[in-house]
Amino acid sequence: MKKRAARPQSKNEESPKERPAKKQARFAVADAEFASRVRQSFNRQGLMKYLGAELVELTAGHATIRVPFRAELTQQHNYFHAGVSGAIADSACGYAAYTLMPTDSSVLTVEYKLNLLAPADGEELTARARVIRSGRTLKICTADVHTRKNGKDVHCATMLATIMCLPGKSDRAG
Amino acid sequence: MKKRAARPQSKNEESPKERPAKKQARFAVADAEFASRVRQSFNRQGLMKYLGAELVELTAGHATIRVPFRAELTQQHNYFHAGVSGAIADSACGYAAYTLMPTDSSVLTVEYKLNLLAPADGEELTARARVIRSGRTLKICTADVHTRKNGKDVHCATMLATIMCLPGKSDRAG
Amino acid sequence: MKKRAARPQSKNEESPKERPAKKQARFAVADAEFASRVRQSFNRQGLMKYLGAELVELTAGHATIRVPFRAELTQQHNYFHAGVSGAIADSACGYAAYTLMPTDSSVLTVEYKLNLLAPADGEELTARARVIRSGRTLKICTADVHTRKNGKDVHCATMLATIMCLPGKSDRAG
Amino acid sequence: MKKRAARPQSKNEESPKERPAKKQARFAVADAEFASRVRQSFNRQGLMKYLGAELVELTAGHATIRVPFRAELTQQHNYFHAGVSGAIADSACGYAAYTLMPTDSSVLTVEYKLNLLAPADGEELTARARVIRSGRTLKICTADVHTRKNGKDVHCATMLATIMCLPGKSDRAG
Repeated sequence: MKKRAARPQSKNEESPKERPAKKQARFAVADAEFASRVRQSFNRQGLMKYLGAELVELTAGHATIRVPFRAELTQQHNYFHAGVSGAIADSACGYAAYTLMPTDSSVLTVEYKLNLLAPADGEELTARARVIRSGRTLKICTADVHTRKNGKDVHCATMLATIMCLPGKSDRAG
Repeated sequence: MKKRAARPQSKNEESPKERPAKKQARFAVADAEFASRVRQSFNRQGLMKYLGAELVELTAGHATIRVPFRAELTQQHNYFHAGVSGAIADSACGYAAYTLMPTDSSVLTVEYKLNLLAPADGEELTARARVIRSGRTLKICTADVHTRKNGKDVHCATMLATIMCLPGKSDRAG
Repeated sequence: MKKRAARPQSKNEESPKERPAKKQARFAVADAEFASRVRQSFNRQGLMKYLGAELVELTAGHATIRVPFRAELTQQHNYFHAGVSGAIADSACGYAAYTLMPTDSSVLTVEYKLNLLAPADGEELTARARVIRSGRTLKICTADVHTRKNGKDVHCATMLATIMCLPGKSDRAG
Repeated sequence: MKKRAARPQSKNEESPKERPAKKQARFAVADAEFASRVRQSFNRQGLMKYLGAELVELTAGHATIRVPFRAELTQQHNYFHAGVSGAIADSACGYAAYTLMPTDSSVLTVEYKLNLLAPADGEELTARARVIRSGRTLKICTADVHTRKNGKDVHCATMLATIMCLPGKSDRAG
């Protein structure tokens, strides 16, 4: 398996922020076209669209998902519901892991734990995930969720997740 | 603190299934009016309404939330997204715990862990939560999530959660 | 894979309590000799011996480990340390899962979560584990830990764990 | 509560490595004498002594515990048992949190999750914990566990834990 830098995705997709080379170099990429494969999978997730979530950053071993505030996403105190934090952090972990999987594979969340650190009271919610251990079958990932209010970021949740690679099973086949 | 049976909620709400008396008797109820208090809180959760989720059962220490399938709730393989399982299981745990809290209190999820057991491939998704340890400040809860397809239930996820009681803070005050 | 009943283990090992047939029948057993294989693995765990832990019950998909109180196993309040609860619950989950794995396989803990429910203040500590989902590669297990004091059991911890089967890798090879 | 820098502990205790000022400044210290209070509590943990564990570093919001390899600490493949990783990471999280608690308080682990990343095959095992969110009642902590073999560190486990402060309850009173 040859280690390559992540290729930029096509022009009509949002350009990811650049990560320092040191972090990118940590992981072996099995599929140089991972970005389009991951984005196609993300775009098939009905829930991400319904929540208004966007995949705003994607590099090898990293993914960031952001969702703007809407009253439809709240818990009883009018903050983002923990379920929204959980959903975008789970998808971010899954896709961070999926960047490192082979072309002909499917991605599955085995489990995740979410600790809520502060009320998710803000104008948008951002989950930044990264792979911390990339095994062949299992990838262990973390995600940090921040909410932004009046230009200030608050760390409101953190996730520790186990993601599984199902080889030889296309992500398209349900 | 006097232990009382749960009162039935108002007529225009779905009647909860009866739980065996043995299970109801396990917990001390601090607020005989817990059912209306919990349902009002549930109804203020924008996300539950947006997902189409209903609080279909509520007794002391137990809560069940159900959501019918919609394409808006899916992951890339057209099953329920794990984020939906997480969101309804989290709310079910929180409200199972909230049934046991005093009138003038607010409920907060500290953390939860969700293990996914099988694809959530079905016509509806149901999270049944119960309190397994009711401390004054912290309540430890579990939830099991089942999906129903062609009349058959499949156990698709299980949650272990820590819920916190914030005394003297009304649930209404954001 | 043929489903068989668990065979009794050899006479010089402690006889397991009988489980109801209904529960035993839930899982397919790939290795009729699982009991001796599991006990040999348990006996190679230096930590279990050092803690004074015994594998007191073993049937298909279930394992129970017990440890008597000693001052060497305490936290600062002279109760069992949570690390002891974690260690025996982890081993119990691993061996409950290992009963269902093929002869030529090795067992690995992927992750576990432990919720502490009450002080582990007692004369002995018992972790009872069972498999709740038996996939080919991953087995999801729960364990409940009770402490016994003056003849009364207290539920002091609960674990939710993910256990992995490594096929074709003998448990003996380090 | 006044924010103060951590005071050095007494001379007969191991000197902690210096942390960058930026990290120390993140947390408000309620008890300038936290180091001796924490070390006295650690020394009362029978299990830590029995495992051969030492508290090798302690600053405000951080604690590091190390244990040398012994055959008594192994699982069936002769690596450190996951229970040892769990025990020292749990104590490290608890004591990282306890540095930030008031004099007259006691510390309690609510729950922890441990993900195992690689075999703990080495000459020693080190758990480094830090507080990532310091609430009045609950402190959320992470710990990373490394094993050292032939001069090389391997990241073998990571923990995410919830620690509780019990105010007005001395740590000495069992």
